[in-house]
Amino acid sequence: MTSKKAIVLFSGGLDSTTCLYWALDKGYTCETLTVSYGQRHAREVQAAQQIASKLGVKQHSVALNFPWLSTSSLVGKDQVIPDQSLADITSGQIPSTYVPGRNLIFLSVAASLADAVSADAIVAGPNAIDFSGYPDCTPAFFETVGKAINLGTKRGVQHGLEVLAPLMHLSKTDIVKLGAKLGVPFELTWSCYNGGDTPCGHCDSCKLRARGFAEAGVKDGSVEK
Amino acid sequence: MTSKKAIVLFSGGLDSTTCLYWALDKGYTCETLTVSYGQRHAREVQAAQQIASKLGVKQHSVALNFPWLSTSSLVGKDQVIPDQSLADITSGQIPSTYVPGRNLIFLSVAASLADAVSADAIVAGPNAIDFSGYPDCTPAFFETVGKAINLGTKRGVQHGLEVLAPLMHLSKTDIVKLGAKLGVPFELTWSCYNGGDTPCGHCDSCKLRARGFAEAGVKDGSVEK
Repeated sequence: MTSKKAIVLFSGGLDSTTCLYWALDKGYTCETLTVSYGQRHAREVQAAQQIASKLGVKQHSVALNFPWLSTSSLVGKDQVIPDQSLADITSGQIPSTYVPGRNLIFLSVAASLADAVSADAIVAGPNAIDFSGYPDCTPAFFETVGKAINLGTKRGVQHGLEVLAPLMHLSKTDIVKLGAKLGVPFELTWSCYNGGDTPCGHCDSCKLRARGFAEAGVKDGSVEK
Repeated sequence: MTSKKAIVLFSGGLDSTTCLYWALDKGYTCETLTVSYGQRHAREVQAAQQIASKLGVKQHSVALNFPWLSTSSLVGKDQVIPDQSLADITSGQIPSTYVPGRNLIFLSVAASLADAVSADAIVAGPNAIDFSGYPDCTPAFFETVGKAINLGTKRGVQHGLEVLAPLMHLSKTDIVKLGAKLGVPFELTWSCYNGGDTPCGHCDSCKLRARGFAEAGVKDGSVEK
């Protein structure tokens, strides 16, 4: 029996790297898809390539150039990434780092690739517990996009195409624990929204990550060398 | 009262040009979005620019470079556009011109733009009557993507974002009649899948268009100079 094929949306961050290791552990033959969209932390794309190469999985990288994405502070060079408290981060407000339609675009591109290569599943790393209030990270959104993909692609109509979000209901602490169990090379992953040489420690992503590692009692090799 | 804003997915073909004129007639302030994806009939992009300029509407153009789209005969340079009978075209089989995930990607990019510029609606020209059996042109698919867009974008969640497909249930003949009523400059539109100087007359798109004009009793200025 040949193994099932999965397209893993892979940014090189903690969550999507854990997803990739999860899918490999489940027996999927994985191909990764990394999307550059002008994000200031393009360093995550390097992390993705490094991890995919280490695993020997087939990588797909595409670059999008949509000028209007600069309305997001994660893309616009003249904007500042906010420094919020963890309480504000998880308050449900949509912050300036929200990128318009990002996960919808990512999933559509993944569906297109999955359709072209006759994959069985798409794996993505949204999380509705410890997240920044982005509307495109909720279970209802992912479920509905999954339905659309199965209605609107050849592979979906003729075979079925699963959209899997294994981290959806996990806390960041549980994601770190899962990653540790699966052997994720945390030191190679990149989460910081700012694109410096070392994580800034102040952005939403750094704060959520730090709390996750602290509560899991796991050392984060990317910041503690 | 300010007019509502619509993003019109606009290829420069007969259907999307009729959509643009329909949306303007409905009172929307329109911005067009034209997507290049390596299609061999890139000539349609020129048509789109010409028509949008004539109307004085704001144009957005983006180019996608996804290598796997060359599995479609509409993109792959080493493939041949099929010459099928109208009966075969409308048989419900998915032909080689199907582009994996095309409408899902188009609608996602439109949703992203609509989100960034705070639009009220997205207008697209799918048609489920005289079409080539593409799964991404059905009412069920469009309805489901509309739900996903309203769940997964800031604009959708906070305000609502309509996804309108005014041609969905019209025959090609009715589309020609509607276009004629709205003053669509048919001679500027481009439908042919092959990218020559004049329409080939043999591809699915040419055949469906020719039948539509013939049955509507309207002269097609793009082929009859």
